[in-house]
Amino acid sequence: MNVVGSNMTVVTVAELPELNTLGISMARINFASWGINPPHTHPRATEILTVIEGSILVVFVTSNPENRLITKLLQKGDVFVFPEGLIHFQKNVGKGYAIAIAALSSQNPSVITIANVVFGSNPDIDTNILAKAFQVDVKVVQEIQSKFEYFRSSMMLTSITVTFITSCVLCC
Amino acid sequence: MNVVGSNMTVVTVAELPELNTLGISMARINFASWGINPPHTHPRATEILTVIEGSILVVFVTSNPENRLITKLLQKGDVFVFPEGLIHFQKNVGKGYAIAIAALSSQNPSVITIANVVFGSNPDIDTNILAKAFQVDVKVVQEIQSKFEYFRSSMMLTSITVTFITSCVLCC
Amino acid sequence: MNVVGSNMTVVTVAELPELNTLGISMARINFASWGINPPHTHPRATEILTVIEGSILVVFVTSNPENRLITKLLQKGDVFVFPEGLIHFQKNVGKGYAIAIAALSSQNPSVITIANVVFGSNPDIDTNILAKAFQVDVKVVQEIQSKFEYFRSSMMLTSITVTFITSCVLCC
Amino acid sequence: MNVVGSNMTVVTVAELPELNTLGISMARINFASWGINPPHTHPRATEILTVIEGSILVVFVTSNPENRLITKLLQKGDVFVFPEGLIHFQKNVGKGYAIAIAALSSQNPSVITIANVVFGSNPDIDTNILAKAFQVDVKVVQEIQSKFEYFRSSMMLTSITVTFITSCVLCC
Amino acid sequence: MNVVGSNMTVVTVAELPELNTLGISMARINFASWGINPPHTHPRATEILTVIEGSILVVFVTSNPENRLITKLLQKGDVFVFPEGLIHFQKNVGKGYAIAIAALSSQNPSVITIANVVFGSNPDIDTNILAKAFQVDVKVVQEIQSKFEYFRSSMMLTSITVTFITSCVLCC
Amino acid sequence: MNVVGSNMTVVTVAELPELNTLGISMARINFASWGINPPHTHPRATEILTVIEGSILVVFVTSNPENRLITKLLQKGDVFVFPEGLIHFQKNVGKGYAIAIAALSSQNPSVITIANVVFGSNPDIDTNILAKAFQVDVKVVQEIQSKFEYFRSSMMLTSITVTFITSCVLCC
Repeated sequence: MNVVGSNMTVVTVAELPELNTLGISMARINFASWGINPPHTHPRATEILTVIEGSILVVFVTSNPENRLITKLLQKGDVFVFPEGLIHFQKNVGKGYAIAIAALSSQNPSVITIANVVFGSNPDIDTNILAKAFQVDVKVVQEIQSKFEYFRSSMMLTSITVTFITSCVLCC
Repeated sequence: MNVVGSNMTVVTVAELPELNTLGISMARINFASWGINPPHTHPRATEILTVIEGSILVVFVTSNPENRLITKLLQKGDVFVFPEGLIHFQKNVGKGYAIAIAALSSQNPSVITIANVVFGSNPDIDTNILAKAFQVDVKVVQEIQSKFEYFRSSMMLTSITVTFITSCVLCC
Repeated sequence: MNVVGSNMTVVTVAELPELNTLGISMARINFASWGINPPHTHPRATEILTVIEGSILVVFVTSNPENRLITKLLQKGDVFVFPEGLIHFQKNVGKGYAIAIAALSSQNPSVITIANVVFGSNPDIDTNILAKAFQVDVKVVQEIQSKFEYFRSSMMLTSITVTFITSCVLCC
Repeated sequence: MNVVGSNMTVVTVAELPELNTLGISMARINFASWGINPPHTHPRATEILTVIEGSILVVFVTSNPENRLITKLLQKGDVFVFPEGLIHFQKNVGKGYAIAIAALSSQNPSVITIANVVFGSNPDIDTNILAKAFQVDVKVVQEIQSKFEYFRSSMMLTSITVTFITSCVLCC
Repeated sequence: MNVVGSNMTVVTVAELPELNTLGISMARINFASWGINPPHTHPRATEILTVIEGSILVVFVTSNPENRLITKLLQKGDVFVFPEGLIHFQKNVGKGYAIAIAALSSQNPSVITIANVVFGSNPDIDTNILAKAFQVDVKVVQEIQSKFEYFRSSMMLTSITVTFITSCVLCC
Repeated sequence: MNVVGSNMTVVTVAELPELNTLGISMARINFASWGINPPHTHPRATEILTVIEGSILVVFVTSNPENRLITKLLQKGDVFVFPEGLIHFQKNVGKGYAIAIAALSSQNPSVITIANVVFGSNPDIDTNILAKAFQVDVKVVQEIQSKFEYFRSSMMLTSITVTFITSCVLCC
């Protein structure tokens, strides 16, 4: 279980090479009591989720400009869909554990956990930019970033070279 | 200009119906001095960006588990690509204004501004869930949500009905 | 339960209109003791299957000219994939009931049950053609067709008009 | 000519490598007098057929639950379409030979001949399962399987290893 | 027969509505003695061609910068492929008539006859632009355009309104 | 600048390998005073164009049988779309230079310049065929071909072998 009380086991093309080109993958999500699967997106897949055990609150938010919150309390056997690329999360609202099976419309759906990417990237996003984007004090950003510090240091990433096209494109 | 010093003018299928089924759209981004286009994703499109005026810092972060930050300082005429669905942002790092042209690989790419969706949705995401996801005190979450309050109230959204499949799926 | 001891509950775009264009659907399969989900194909989808309860034998056969039989005995939690359009089936090989969750890579995957389509279509396929194709006596075909008779009569289909292009294509 | 009086010559990516990624292939079907091209599907392609010589009866059956039989008698120059993945067949209904040209919407359409896959796979599908699926006596299944024996033995296939995900997916 | 000695009969979604979404169409091309099917492209389809009668010279030219001419003399039964969007043509090189069947990887492939579009559009392309593009005298362009005059006048097209985005995109 | 007064700088997967599979590319077009970007097509991409500097006339022609000419005079900031595969061109109609940014819906869109492909291929298209297709005298075709001679000779292409399927397809 992770620190927010959930655990995901995935079967994508990385685990099952036969899935290559077949456009589908699957995951099981286990929830501790009151556990959450925190806000995240799948950049290349729609997700359809079935509750196997327990009661699970499912939530997603639509894109700009509405940013409308869509939410539903699911019981065992209920099925729900999260459209491709939208930010979504789930919470176990029962006292016991809960289990869900999720299927994704790509053999390589990818996961972007919002808090990890924004406050725990390797290396850090500039503190001033995050303070501006989230309209909070720089100290608040630093506090949140420090909570994700262990995650960054364990990766020990070195710098990489990025290809880009030099300035000839607009200079006559 | 928005509160973080940028302004986007888009040409998608909503503005130009002839784009329907053609798989492309375009946007211009204007930056005030030191302005940022805050962290966001396009759920259905890759973005390719060309700097027309000024010096722009471009950044994106890869998906789990690496969450690697990729960054580059672009000058006039430079071209850069943000892969589909990844969180990215730009910052004008020059004293004057800056302009970029972005093209997107869908006539309906959509934009998800991370801070707006997470802390400014209609209605609010539950404060306790965000506190857990971002590993901060509930008061910090409430402070951030209050900054996005004006955004929510101006929308005056009413509740909507969501279709979902009832519990027959797993009950024999 | 159907006559071969299985029961399928599907969630496709017909049951959940929100799935439209999203490229995914889901199904639950319940098996009685020793029940089978008989040979079938999905014309427009790959299937990924997870065993929720029990022990299930899964089988598919590859296309011409090899027609190789691929088979595996799955236990609770095992995951298996049936490539798009291939003929496959499952059998509960335990004494109790069994349950599987299947996800399909289309919101409208369709199901073709081989025996029903070949021997129980509305109206019947010509007996002589089936005798030739399956290399058996006409009486054997008639016997099999009679088993699927109830299915045909309950549908009471009327004739339909099919568009086709008349003979101008090759006549100068 | 095969035992049911037809012969297919195909031009797919296997025969013409230039077809790779181009999404099309072609086949010629020759029919002896009264010959049939027995029930089959193409898992990844729609087929469009043009009669070059003779009179050909074309048939396909729709998916569950209707299983409606669609049939038409075509003359020289007539054009007909078989939707992707549906079971279909043709019969020469004239005294002389007949020829058709078929085009398929994939460079790698694949062919599944129903009788071969169901009763002639390598190795055999379990006799009891087929008896149950086709609602006939085990002896009838064995009789049909024996007719396809020569086909199996000529292939001399050895067993293969199939990847699948072990039971960790549902065991906490 | 048209003025260059060929005649095309097409079966696309316009003639056979059942082709909708199925990604395929077909055409028959009849050639008079020495007739040609003049240079053209299909904007949305690859073409695969089978010679039914006669000897046909097939030609296509690759894109910039090579513009390499690919050519082959086909006999009855030969099959050839023209990749999507490339300019191609065929010529009957026998004394008698010739017939070919072409299949296209779209139900709506479209045809662009180069000479008609460049010199016979409704209304005319500006003569000076064509003179510059083809590096010939304006009088030569006018001479060619006059040959396609009957084509234009028979259409009697009225002017249409085109949507486009006004100048706000780059003006701060 | 080329002989017709324009210059294109492209950023496709050939120049920026990170674009692979991402479905987008970009180009800048510089125009001398009164310069044209001559009639061409992109076989695999729609194009969306934004005027950065100057006044540009944009033109495309629809497919058969209408061949309708669509034209518009664009000013700085205007945006226009050329549908996939259609023949189009642009002309700088101002006294000074002009610049446009074009985005294309493929990482590998390809360019077919009509005059180069038709009159400047390597080797030449047969003069008689072009005379027939464009309904002009053979001498006119030879004159135009001679203008594109330098282009051909600089390439020094050798003959290549083309795969095709021999005559077994229709010979019983």
